[in-house]
Amino acid sequence: MDLRALKAPIVQAPLAGGASTPQLTAAVASAGGFGFLAAGYKTAEAVAGDIRELRALSDAPFGVNVFAPPATNVDPAAVAAYAASLATDARHYGTHTGEPRHDDDHFADKLELMVAERPAVVSFTFGCPEALVVTRLHEAGCDVWVTITSPDESELAAAAGADALVVQGLEAGGHRGGFSDPPQYEEFGLLSLLRLVAQCVPVRLVASGGIGDGAAVAAVLAAGADAAQVGTALMLSPEAGTPLAYREALKQERATSLTRAFSGRRARGIVNRFMVEHDAGAPVAYPDVHYVTTPIRAAAREAGDAEAINLWAGQTHTLAVEKPAAEIVRRLTEDARASVAEAAERLGDSRS
Amino acid sequence: MDLRALKAPIVQAPLAGGASTPQLTAAVASAGGFGFLAAGYKTAEAVAGDIRELRALSDAPFGVNVFAPPATNVDPAAVAAYAASLATDARHYGTHTGEPRHDDDHFADKLELMVAERPAVVSFTFGCPEALVVTRLHEAGCDVWVTITSPDESELAAAAGADALVVQGLEAGGHRGGFSDPPQYEEFGLLSLLRLVAQCVPVRLVASGGIGDGAAVAAVLAAGADAAQVGTALMLSPEAGTPLAYREALKQERATSLTRAFSGRRARGIVNRFMVEHDAGAPVAYPDVHYVTTPIRAAAREAGDAEAINLWAGQTHTLAVEKPAAEIVRRLTEDARASVAEAAERLGDSRS
Repeated sequence: MDLRALKAPIVQAPLAGGASTPQLTAAVASAGGFGFLAAGYKTAEAVAGDIRELRALSDAPFGVNVFAPPATNVDPAAVAAYAASLATDARHYGTHTGEPRHDDDHFADKLELMVAERPAVVSFTFGCPEALVVTRLHEAGCDVWVTITSPDESELAAAAGADALVVQGLEAGGHRGGFSDPPQYEEFGLLSLLRLVAQCVPVRLVASGGIGDGAAVAAVLAAGADAAQVGTALMLSPEAGTPLAYREALKQERATSLTRAFSGRRARGIVNRFMVEHDAGAPVAYPDVHYVTTPIRAAAREAGDAEAINLWAGQTHTLAVEKPAAEIVRRLTEDARASVAEAAERLGDSRS
Repeated sequence: MDLRALKAPIVQAPLAGGASTPQLTAAVASAGGFGFLAAGYKTAEAVAGDIRELRALSDAPFGVNVFAPPATNVDPAAVAAYAASLATDARHYGTHTGEPRHDDDHFADKLELMVAERPAVVSFTFGCPEALVVTRLHEAGCDVWVTITSPDESELAAAAGADALVVQGLEAGGHRGGFSDPPQYEEFGLLSLLRLVAQCVPVRLVASGGIGDGAAVAAVLAAGADAAQVGTALMLSPEAGTPLAYREALKQERATSLTRAFSGRRARGIVNRFMVEHDAGAPVAYPDVHYVTTPIRAAAREAGDAEAINLWAGQTHTLAVEKPAAEIVRRLTEDARASVAEAAERLGDSRS
């Protein structure tokens, strides 16, 4: 998959956990961008169904995002104490806390599915696949992308054979996609991270984190990215599976923050009541805490109450627009062209 | 001062506390950029001397950066306890801790000096000047720039009459320049902050934070900035007053972090022993803690020991090069042109 051959230099973020739909993936591709299906939080069978549905909608190449297996250093007592602290919330929504579980999100099954289905790209979040896994996917004809959040991770991913890196700045909505939590390194803003990674590794770069309009797309291309990955910018489109209360929150001028309150791993979302009340008590325990909070989040979604939903959103969520996804992709690309032309004008002629 | 008329879209960061010199300011201007003198930590008389020295070196317009008066909510007991915790360090460097002091860095004197000396620009850090101060500087013929770190602050600064905003992302080296510590808002990466501020206010924008090479300059121009402010990128130049041990640290692949350990206000620097040992204990107390640590930092500089110097540095400090400042400014501009041209090529023709 030649990133630089994409007509629109736009990659749709996988958006695991609800907003991802085959319709969104197909719409992004129809405008010349590159779409992803999110395998996270699903069985391999459900992902296979999504792939079938997408292939019925579009014959464009697409990617599938898979969660790498999480670390295993979880303290069950801390998880139990956290679950107990959520009892009032659970009662409020007429539900209970979920059973904590530590699993690898069906990693082996999904890997087999990828080898069988051969999407153009398999991207990984939460860790770097072993070189053997990368080789196996390469032999199946899949490119491998790895999400990184530091220069050190970029070198590990390149050494494992990654074809491209999703360079995630701390502006990004949703989970921090790097290899460890807590991180082993400083937290980089997107622009600094892009420039440092470009010095480290010779692979293709997909910039990710707070890219909300065409000027930001232009900026990351100027900074050396081959494409811009956008997630929040697409979440108000009709093709996205974003719940109504979540859509309303995205339009409001509300702060975002990183929190482990919903999943046990740091993720950026709009600050709401649940985050404020539970952030300090949330342990490092992914995906255990994800399962603990699942019934509460589901009940809040059902009730249309945004104050206990994990409102993942990047720092520029107020820039998101309510347009069809294909139109958003076209507009991002056209506005990026205009922004680059303005920057060229500002810089003047090199002969002057 | 028309930012868009600068031949090089490069603003030299003020670099209060040592690296700032009239030679650096003049060298940046000689290459078509815009230089600043740092008034911070100096008497008005010393600043007047710097202005005389600069005017002897260069007839180019320049700016002076002034610290806005700090908040007054400091707990003397917390400062005393912190000073006591530094006793071992003080002994190690054969010195003592300094007397804590809460002052406004001679704000009124410096304002009079600005009105008398009329630099092209007076920029403010740590707060927004009152509208009356802005009017007075305007009447003296000075443009007023205000450092901001959030969209809310951009609106306050524009309402006070600021002609331009220094938009500081969290990648930036040195002190967080916003209006309060702790901040009242989320901490924004530069690219997201630029795009949000561009939606809020119609004034000129100077991007600041981790801009270490020409590609990053191109990126912030594409994102709507009128110029890029660089600090760390100039600190290895011979014109900068950067101590030798500090220069060596800047070249090393060492992490940076935000800390109050040196000054009582959060600032980004290279992680060293002093930061690791004292970060957790440092109170919110600026500039009181600055005065407490001054003798230790001075002794460490004298001893050439980087482990107790405040090694302010942006996230891309390893990109800094040992070249004359004018050559750095020219190279940043030329490389920015090349990066914009590459982005334009990537985006293709709008008719395709």
